[in-house]
Amino acid sequence: MSGMTTAAAADSEKRSPGRPRSARSEQAIIDAVLEMIADGDALETISIESIAARAGVGKATIYRRWASRDQVVIDAVASMKLPIPEVAGESVRADLITLMSQIGQPNGARSGKVMTCILPQIARNPDLHEWYQQVIEPRRAVTRAVLRRGIDTGELRADLDVEVVLLVLTAPMILQRTMRWNPALDGPDLAERVVAAVLTGAAPPA
Amino acid sequence: MSGMTTAAAADSEKRSPGRPRSARSEQAIIDAVLEMIADGDALETISIESIAARAGVGKATIYRRWASRDQVVIDAVASMKLPIPEVAGESVRADLITLMSQIGQPNGARSGKVMTCILPQIARNPDLHEWYQQVIEPRRAVTRAVLRRGIDTGELRADLDVEVVLLVLTAPMILQRTMRWNPALDGPDLAERVVAAVLTGAAPPA
Repeated sequence: MSGMTTAAAADSEKRSPGRPRSARSEQAIIDAVLEMIADGDALETISIESIAARAGVGKATIYRRWASRDQVVIDAVASMKLPIPEVAGESVRADLITLMSQIGQPNGARSGKVMTCILPQIARNPDLHEWYQQVIEPRRAVTRAVLRRGIDTGELRADLDVEVVLLVLTAPMILQRTMRWNPALDGPDLAERVVAAVLTGAAPPA
Repeated sequence: MSGMTTAAAADSEKRSPGRPRSARSEQAIIDAVLEMIADGDALETISIESIAARAGVGKATIYRRWASRDQVVIDAVASMKLPIPEVAGESVRADLITLMSQIGQPNGARSGKVMTCILPQIARNPDLHEWYQQVIEPRRAVTRAVLRRGIDTGELRADLDVEVVLLVLTAPMILQRTMRWNPALDGPDLAERVVAAVLTGAAPPA
């Protein structure tokens, strides 16, 4: 999306010193969007007007930084993502557990609730879906690199179905952490159990 | 939830012959709820009033069958579930592919869109979450029985982490089918690839 460039430019401006009032308004605007999403408002119903009212700013303040409603929503969602985690690079199993443990971990108290609302709505909007792919692809790339390293070192099978294994590792973490799919699986050891199940396989040893 | 008994009783009444007008109203009410969810309305904002307006019926018509708003929503969501699939019972792999293939398959054109909206909202509402567990547990039980049979026949490892493997099989299908998580994985062979990855395991043969 072309709007990402604008947002990125505004982002560096936001972080420059000497503009505290503007930075405060921008944080209030982002917070307003996140609160509305957490309250259950559908993305489609969030407007520049409703954001302005909730943030206590004028519409012009929003348009000074963002060109459209979609771009405000995009920046709000992106603000919840934790930094891409670093991996130790020694054991593929340990690195996968590190990466899976971070999935669905809220960046701040609100974001778990927000993400459960946002994912399906992103899926329904082709523009947002395409943008979200650009947000998550660098994260996917980190796990993919660990899997490829494992193939090279012999820690993983040479014929690994890499894209499917990425999904098979990631989807359980997302579904359980954001939707509490199976309450019997509550607990801190889920990433370890998922990685173990995927590495070992359900079939018996040959 | 105690309301399920009422709804079940009304359900058999609905199917009895000679009450076409009442059945038509009830279908219009269920359709109205599904349409509102598909439009992106948050569950919290759906009221008896808004259902009545959308379905073109009086509130009394709704209260004649359902005791509360939650019960209308529950019946609407339950109406989208396909019957629990039957499995051939010969090969565990084939049965798992059969079961996984059905996940996220829409029961009617609208339900895929509706389910992506509904799952996170169910997760946020403890009463609905508990109710939904009762809806999905019988489905989970079918797959669990196939896994246990596999342990008995030796098609699966004796030390299988059954609940985690259930999640590891199911979550990829849900996430990909309802949210199109990774567009690279679009295609009709996903269930087969997921089952193969989970059976085989990512670790190399010992």
